[in-house]
Amino acid sequence: MVISAEDLRRLSAQTLAEAGVDPSDAELIAGILVDADVRGHGSHGVSLLPLYLARIRAGGIRLDGVPETTAVGPVVQVEAHGGPGQVAAMQAAKACAEVTREYGIGVATISGGNHVGMLAAYRQPFQVSKCIGLVFNVSGPSVAPPGGASAVLGNNACCLIVPREEEAPFIVDFATGAVACGKIRQAAMRAELIPEGWLLDPDGVPTRDPRGLDAGGSVPVFGGYKGLCVTLIVEVLGGLLASGRASPDVRRQRQSPAEVMQCGQMFVGFYPPAFGVGDAGPTIDRLADAIRSSYPDTAPETWFPEQLEGRAMRRHRYEGIDLPDALVSEIGWSLDAVGSP
Amino acid sequence: MVISAEDLRRLSAQTLAEAGVDPSDAELIAGILVDADVRGHGSHGVSLLPLYLARIRAGGIRLDGVPETTAVGPVVQVEAHGGPGQVAAMQAAKACAEVTREYGIGVATISGGNHVGMLAAYRQPFQVSKCIGLVFNVSGPSVAPPGGASAVLGNNACCLIVPREEEAPFIVDFATGAVACGKIRQAAMRAELIPEGWLLDPDGVPTRDPRGLDAGGSVPVFGGYKGLCVTLIVEVLGGLLASGRASPDVRRQRQSPAEVMQCGQMFVGFYPPAFGVGDAGPTIDRLADAIRSSYPDTAPETWFPEQLEGRAMRRHRYEGIDLPDALVSEIGWSLDAVGSP
Repeated sequence: MVISAEDLRRLSAQTLAEAGVDPSDAELIAGILVDADVRGHGSHGVSLLPLYLARIRAGGIRLDGVPETTAVGPVVQVEAHGGPGQVAAMQAAKACAEVTREYGIGVATISGGNHVGMLAAYRQPFQVSKCIGLVFNVSGPSVAPPGGASAVLGNNACCLIVPREEEAPFIVDFATGAVACGKIRQAAMRAELIPEGWLLDPDGVPTRDPRGLDAGGSVPVFGGYKGLCVTLIVEVLGGLLASGRASPDVRRQRQSPAEVMQCGQMFVGFYPPAFGVGDAGPTIDRLADAIRSSYPDTAPETWFPEQLEGRAMRRHRYEGIDLPDALVSEIGWSLDAVGSP
Repeated sequence: MVISAEDLRRLSAQTLAEAGVDPSDAELIAGILVDADVRGHGSHGVSLLPLYLARIRAGGIRLDGVPETTAVGPVVQVEAHGGPGQVAAMQAAKACAEVTREYGIGVATISGGNHVGMLAAYRQPFQVSKCIGLVFNVSGPSVAPPGGASAVLGNNACCLIVPREEEAPFIVDFATGAVACGKIRQAAMRAELIPEGWLLDPDGVPTRDPRGLDAGGSVPVFGGYKGLCVTLIVEVLGGLLASGRASPDVRRQRQSPAEVMQCGQMFVGFYPPAFGVGDAGPTIDRLADAIRSSYPDTAPETWFPEQLEGRAMRRHRYEGIDLPDALVSEIGWSLDAVGSP
């Protein structure tokens, strides 16, 4: 099914609202999911809807869980009370940007939360307030350390949002596993083999069968020992400081549909004028030019953040978003429900 | 020459003072260098002394450069005025810890700076104030992006300092190149070959000859594209926000001995009680236990931060520090100047 982003957003919001989600929260969640599809990360897009709906039914996402915010100076804490992750996270992003404008630096953490989707989706509050945002997310165990054979750490995420005057924000957004788990599940849904290096089977042996992930497999951490170092930094800031717990004590959303994940997030904001700094655009351009110059002949297809996403956004604007039939029928959408893009 | 840490510190401080460094600054710099040797990172130890002395003589490290600190709420800016990097950095670390205790979160940046050595060496102010510290450093271009052939980015550094009640702080400290440049230079000094993957020659071809680094070679960034993402985060926070410049505009200390490096640093502090969090020790133990459990048979020699450093500290306490003869004669130390450890 090929569908325009607008239609996909409307349909997703409607489906969430029918499941009992507050209509404005449903709009927010749908917008964040579709944003991931538009940016080319279908792993974090509406392919998550069936899971969210199952978790709402089972009670893992609590529809009566309304986020509660406490702020003391530049430190904001949001207790999500088990509600939809996106609602608490957008509240935290906004609160972080607000205190950052006041103090020059600010932070908002989330405890008692659920899955928040693609971190880059929280760029808007930072963009509007012209603050730089650094975001961490801790998830349940799916990643093996270097040379390890089982899933003991989160496929944690790390994101930097840098507003620019003349262009869309510069965004760096990655998971600390060799690949995001959703990308493996997407391959499973499309019945495709995955590249080598993405997954270990339940015995710790490398496999190209994506179904191994939810059968007890694990994703190797990216970058060996130094990648482990990065993920440990996220564990301390986005885990311990945010929610008092690291990934070994976070629940996996698929495996525990009836339970709140308890995953932690941290948003740190920096207001450049407080540091005597103006528009970040020229510095980002300088870095891109330097990197480009290091390829004497042909550069790789993607050598700088936002290139892949920029291409995907242009493509999806013209061609619409192509959803796997298996997903459409799993959610129960009718092919007649929407027009062509 | 085998020497005790105490003697090495005294000798180094004396040598710096004789070169015109203020005696208390000389003590500080010597302490930071020897700390790296003791922790097993000789690349960041007294092997840097000949370079520092040459830069002092040439004017790249300005002995009249006294750091100037400006604080507005939780944001501290330190202008190093081209003085020794360690002096500005310790001032920034202390100021960061101080504002962090007051506001719950705090930040100190350094502009106009020089080489600061091993970031973990700045743990003490965070340890004493019981604050978590996140530290970034941007250095001059020595690193190639994934698939690139030349040195266009800094071998930037990233460090997390987590005080614990019952133990020494938990520290994560790594460079965003496949290896720290100093480790390659140490191999050159010992006339050893380096492992594959550490270095590209001036034509971008992998080499095991460590002399290639300062002959126009480059170190590949760690972790491929995701490692590039990490180093870009450091560029924005430790570069743009700290000093208004990213690594392509930072000078390399060896190549430009007469010029201030202009490398930037950022210290971010978090006071756990402001986040409702107590001792980090149990969470770090939980992470270590989880990782250990993923090795069904033998774990790698080093599978968690501070293991290598802990072993090195114990060894050096008993056996003293073994310095290459080439280094000792380059600095001009007499073998009779010190007793055995």
